[in-house]
Amino acid sequence: MKPTLTILKIGGNVIDLPSSLETVLSDFASWREHKALVHGGGKQASSLMNRLGIAPQMVNGRRITDRQTLDIVTMVYAGLINKNIVATLQKHACNAIGLSGADAGVIPATKRPVKETDYGFVGDVIPADIRAEQLSRFIDMGLAPVIAPITHNREGSLLNTNADTIASGVAVALSQYYRVQLVFCFEKNGVLRDPSDDHSVIARMDEALFLQCKNEGVITAGMIPKLENAFAALHGGVAGVRICSPEGVENGGTSISL
Amino acid sequence: MKPTLTILKIGGNVIDLPSSLETVLSDFASWREHKALVHGGGKQASSLMNRLGIAPQMVNGRRITDRQTLDIVTMVYAGLINKNIVATLQKHACNAIGLSGADAGVIPATKRPVKETDYGFVGDVIPADIRAEQLSRFIDMGLAPVIAPITHNREGSLLNTNADTIASGVAVALSQYYRVQLVFCFEKNGVLRDPSDDHSVIARMDEALFLQCKNEGVITAGMIPKLENAFAALHGGVAGVRICSPEGVENGGTSISL
Repeated sequence: MKPTLTILKIGGNVIDLPSSLETVLSDFASWREHKALVHGGGKQASSLMNRLGIAPQMVNGRRITDRQTLDIVTMVYAGLINKNIVATLQKHACNAIGLSGADAGVIPATKRPVKETDYGFVGDVIPADIRAEQLSRFIDMGLAPVIAPITHNREGSLLNTNADTIASGVAVALSQYYRVQLVFCFEKNGVLRDPSDDHSVIARMDEALFLQCKNEGVITAGMIPKLENAFAALHGGVAGVRICSPEGVENGGTSISL
Repeated sequence: MKPTLTILKIGGNVIDLPSSLETVLSDFASWREHKALVHGGGKQASSLMNRLGIAPQMVNGRRITDRQTLDIVTMVYAGLINKNIVATLQKHACNAIGLSGADAGVIPATKRPVKETDYGFVGDVIPADIRAEQLSRFIDMGLAPVIAPITHNREGSLLNTNADTIASGVAVALSQYYRVQLVFCFEKNGVLRDPSDDHSVIARMDEALFLQCKNEGVITAGMIPKLENAFAALHGGVAGVRICSPEGVENGGTSISL
């Protein structure tokens, strides 16, 4: 039987609020089984851009990663956030190792092709390209990978990649070696029936319910790609997926199934 | 017999000039034996501080690392510079892995005690504390560690540490496992008899000559701590140390001996 591996994805306000980050990292550090963490960027990259007087470039509500923006997300995600998370985990006796997708070549990506929009230095990841064997060697050494949402194109360029997509892709790739549990942790208590009511958590969600909720407009905006990443993980062989808040990391939130 | 490991330290203009960085990284990538790279920060941290309107705080010509400065060096050294070096090495088929001292806990440090001056978040490293066994496992896997000059205090704080000191300390610590050659690569051709004449390279320097040159005022300023780190490495069991320019990385520059 494959050993269990839990992959915790943290993003949004969980990263921006020091108290909530500390809670979730001390929980993560205490887990005895194999584990890995994937983090997003929070608001710190935008805040640094503001301080530098760089205006975000948006097309249809999506950010364009030009050269300056790529340098900033590399600094903030792979530098500031990643290394502070690693130092905090080391304090809690968790042998964390921070990785961007370029490190040990673990997550190669392809620059998104220019169609109607040129998204700039944005990388799309194919789970089959992820170096799962290299990641599993780190994990089997007793290390806990802490992965920043920066990938590389194997030709010397870094790329900006969505952290939920990385979490889902890494979970699928590692399912060859482990029984993977994927936990998306963010500021809400789970998938909500009413976004304004934090107690309206949907305990279980399958694809049929997702389609229904999407058609009814109950699930909108940022929750749609998050759920698509969750279902992609299950289709790719991941054993279980949950979406929850820092308080629900152990077993709360919404359980996702096919 | 121990296998050979070459540790290349790069700093100063070598990092700031893209053409010189590309040359030295493609040389490094081509080496067949075990290897590791340690990099400094160049001028990019100061340039980001200027853009953010943060004035460097200096005491007796030495920089003070306050909280804001620590965040900036973490972003620039462990993020921007480290990940771009790793991506460039991956392009050249070198399986590089970027590490700060916090990653896998490889380089713990102690915050410098406050005496006349409070240097802030500056870490002093004891070679015996470096996790040489962990680093050697990465190297024996075929990985080339790329180490940024950021350490951690094991209590959750990152610390700013001189890159020459890290290179010397890591070289000493890894001498348990390898016959280590340490190469300090910077913008000069080696240790110069006349700092204004780049052809006045001293081919060999031992401790007696160092003392003589220091007394005569031939060696001054930044070269003194660099040479002290070189001699400390040799006293700690490192097999050979050279100081050279990117063009001299293979076998040029000044050879240091006891």
